[in-house]
Amino acid sequence: MFNRAAIIGAGLIGGSIGMGLRQRRLARQVAAVARSEETLRLALDLGAADSASRSLAEAVSDADLVVLAAPVSLIVQHLGIIGETIDATCLVTDVGSVKAPIVAAAEKTLPHPGRFIGGHPLAGSERRGIASARPDLFEGATWVFTPGIAAEAEAVSRAQQLAVALGAKPLLLSPQEHDDLAARTSHLPHIVAAALMTVIALRANEGAAILDVIGQGFRDATRIAAGDAALWTDIALANADALLAALGEMNAVLTRFAAALAARDREELERLLLDAQRARETL
Amino acid sequence: MFNRAAIIGAGLIGGSIGMGLRQRRLARQVAAVARSEETLRLALDLGAADSASRSLAEAVSDADLVVLAAPVSLIVQHLGIIGETIDATCLVTDVGSVKAPIVAAAEKTLPHPGRFIGGHPLAGSERRGIASARPDLFEGATWVFTPGIAAEAEAVSRAQQLAVALGAKPLLLSPQEHDDLAARTSHLPHIVAAALMTVIALRANEGAAILDVIGQGFRDATRIAAGDAALWTDIALANADALLAALGEMNAVLTRFAAALAARDREELERLLLDAQRARETL
Repeated sequence: MFNRAAIIGAGLIGGSIGMGLRQRRLARQVAAVARSEETLRLALDLGAADSASRSLAEAVSDADLVVLAAPVSLIVQHLGIIGETIDATCLVTDVGSVKAPIVAAAEKTLPHPGRFIGGHPLAGSERRGIASARPDLFEGATWVFTPGIAAEAEAVSRAQQLAVALGAKPLLLSPQEHDDLAARTSHLPHIVAAALMTVIALRANEGAAILDVIGQGFRDATRIAAGDAALWTDIALANADALLAALGEMNAVLTRFAAALAARDREELERLLLDAQRARETL
Repeated sequence: MFNRAAIIGAGLIGGSIGMGLRQRRLARQVAAVARSEETLRLALDLGAADSASRSLAEAVSDADLVVLAAPVSLIVQHLGIIGETIDATCLVTDVGSVKAPIVAAAEKTLPHPGRFIGGHPLAGSERRGIASARPDLFEGATWVFTPGIAAEAEAVSRAQQLAVALGAKPLLLSPQEHDDLAARTSHLPHIVAAALMTVIALRANEGAAILDVIGQGFRDATRIAAGDAALWTDIALANADALLAALGEMNAVLTRFAAALAARDREELERLLLDAQRARETL
């Protein structure tokens, strides 16, 4: 499918793509780029790459596939660097959790923006790093692609084929629509889980036995709050407007719950909870 | 350990207690009480009870252990009924998610309130019903007991022994402290998960592809919202004041996140997320 694939950023997602490409023989050669020696060594040891180095330019030269898999703010930087080196026919994609700023940066900085197809595989987790990477990480997952206005149809199709070859289900959305939806399905839940954890931590710091009365429900509800703070700060700031709108919607809904509770309005409270129960059950 | 145990309400928790008592031979006889024929049949078929009927009075007569395992508002009703029938030495406990109103009702209505020890095993789930019951449901779980001012030391000790015999770790709290903490570790997360689900459902109803971009993180964060709405309405109303206070704390924290986002204050946002990350990692 590809001759030489370059994976820029060998973490959970980048490492898993490298492993998948190699195990499924989708690329003759996989070159990984990472900053730490430890990650470079792991990329080779775990079979995520055939070669590993710190040099972006070296990795992307002669590549016909470049996957930008660093945190969101670095992807924008990397787009600026690779533009000078990549072939005109090279397919470029990324795996960032926010798409509009990345697609805009690609259109601005790449010499052939039609070959850039922004992507976001929904396979992240609170775990990170190449040590958690798995070649089957994308099996059954949705992989969103967000072609910009300049995108070539052939590049869109090839990006989708890559996702399918890795076991994922591709989904096309505009960059703005992706960010609007992800603000609610991913970024808002992260902030909410972090806030729940903060409420509990405040009590725990006062010496209450609150950590002893935590059950499985709380663990599930806050699992994502263990995600890397620097990474999520990046994501939240890159999608700040949509996330603020989502926080506003959340606040409006919580206010309705609080009003029903304050009025001891059993009927309204049960209706609100029943709507949520049914919506969750259909997932 | 017990001669005759009566389990009033044979759902997930009551059924699991019955199974545990029988499998571990902690009671010579287990009598289950439920309203539906289907549940009564399942209680016998699944080995949660030796006898099953709709009659509270019949089940509790001659019992030396009564476990009230119906939803919170029914527990208060059942306390009023069993008082006329139970032996003076019978240990009475319950498994309700809110403790202060139940302990108060027991002190008011039971002829021997010193033998009542309110309890709350932290083993609930979004699943319910005896079909999900398991004899090892409490293995490793915390089981809170909330003795009232009248509680006899021997009764407290026996209730704790019951929890240990079922594999749980007993924890003593005052009813008020339990409710104050559970408002934050259980009732608030439930309302928050329901509100998250509501935000997404509103978008889905507008026709957005939002359900297609839901990943594992969102599923985890909202799993508890699938819990039974009637049951949770009961719980929320029984602990309304503490829950409203918790919602106020949540709102204050979310407001700090929103302010940091609106100001594009990277340092503050990362600090907030890092505090939450560290707190979650220590769980």
